[in-house]
Amino acid sequence: MATDQVTLLGMWASPLSLRIEWALKIKGIHYEYIDEDLDNKSQRLLTCNPVHKKVPVLVHAGKPIAESLVILEYIDETWSHSRILPEDPYERAMARFWAKFADDKCWTTIHGVFTKTGQEQENAKSEAIESLKTLEKIPRESKFFGGDAIGFLDIVFGWMAYWVPLLEEITGIILVGEDSLPSLKEWFKNFLDVPLVKELLPPREKLLHHLQTFRQKLITSSS
Amino acid sequence: MATDQVTLLGMWASPLSLRIEWALKIKGIHYEYIDEDLDNKSQRLLTCNPVHKKVPVLVHAGKPIAESLVILEYIDETWSHSRILPEDPYERAMARFWAKFADDKCWTTIHGVFTKTGQEQENAKSEAIESLKTLEKIPRESKFFGGDAIGFLDIVFGWMAYWVPLLEEITGIILVGEDSLPSLKEWFKNFLDVPLVKELLPPREKLLHHLQTFRQKLITSSS
Repeated sequence: MATDQVTLLGMWASPLSLRIEWALKIKGIHYEYIDEDLDNKSQRLLTCNPVHKKVPVLVHAGKPIAESLVILEYIDETWSHSRILPEDPYERAMARFWAKFADDKCWTTIHGVFTKTGQEQENAKSEAIESLKTLEKIPRESKFFGGDAIGFLDIVFGWMAYWVPLLEEITGIILVGEDSLPSLKEWFKNFLDVPLVKELLPPREKLLHHLQTFRQKLITSSS
Repeated sequence: MATDQVTLLGMWASPLSLRIEWALKIKGIHYEYIDEDLDNKSQRLLTCNPVHKKVPVLVHAGKPIAESLVILEYIDETWSHSRILPEDPYERAMARFWAKFADDKCWTTIHGVFTKTGQEQENAKSEAIESLKTLEKIPRESKFFGGDAIGFLDIVFGWMAYWVPLLEEITGIILVGEDSLPSLKEWFKNFLDVPLVKELLPPREKLLHHLQTFRQKLITSSS
């Protein structure tokens, strides 16, 4: 193994894996991609991420790193050209604040809308809509949160642009819809128009089918 | 107001506020401390942290930053002498990974032991003990996670050294105790022996009384 070998243990339908692929592509880093079967995790995944046993894991020069936000910071520090985080410490703090908000609030609540039913799903829906309204208010002076090109926050929020409409279609619950949250909707469009973003997205129909099956299994097993 | 004025909006019994004070003291930064009454939050706190409305908030040169881990990174980048995060990108990634683990797992579950009752408390206890056992395994070659002097992870974990024994006393639930987790216990002792750490700790009896009253109120209102 070359000492600087870069390997990503990911899963094709995982938005968190995709974050890492987007960042590696922006940096122009050559990497090996290994798709994990999450129903039958590889020994390598269990060894590389013994605490959470989850993808994504980036292995660089034989050393594993888990947690997507941690990996993104590592990538930005290790290959410091084409910075994805802002240079200014205050702007960096704002990017980290909103990334944490996106994962603690948006991810958790949207996940709840998708995986729960009944009153629990209703509660998750209200919280998800509130958290998306908060995102709508983040100042964005250019096409992207990173400015004229996509950066850290675009990568962190990115999954929402592709996944939310699919989740709306599957659950019948509207979170963003057509008219509300115009700034976020515009950013969804800008983001998905970026060639590097687009080329890494999983095929729509395949992902839709995967998500439908996943939700069906969850609902059946909890009822 | 001087352009480089540093103000901390905190609360004397908040472990997350204390993180920021420890970091500012390590850096030798002069700061104004404003103690918030969390039952009657100041307009300044609500304006500085409109999303979460929580302490701590660091205001530097008129600009507010919330979320304790975000503030710690900002402090380390803005006043870059006496680095609290490691210099090496991989070591930095490990520090961030464990900081996230501590907040997502240890904080949440220990908080659950303290604020819940019955089966919910039992569940939180099992998870808290598991998460502490995981911390026990983090390699530590020196007195502190930061090496011979305290660093980022010591600051992040620090509250546990002082708060966990108090929470054990109040709830009667043993999380660390005397004999289990010897590495963590030794680190508790090392950490609390540091003069800079010790001098910022809230007085034990005052904190004990505050925590007892807080728990009593919660239990009464939920029963």
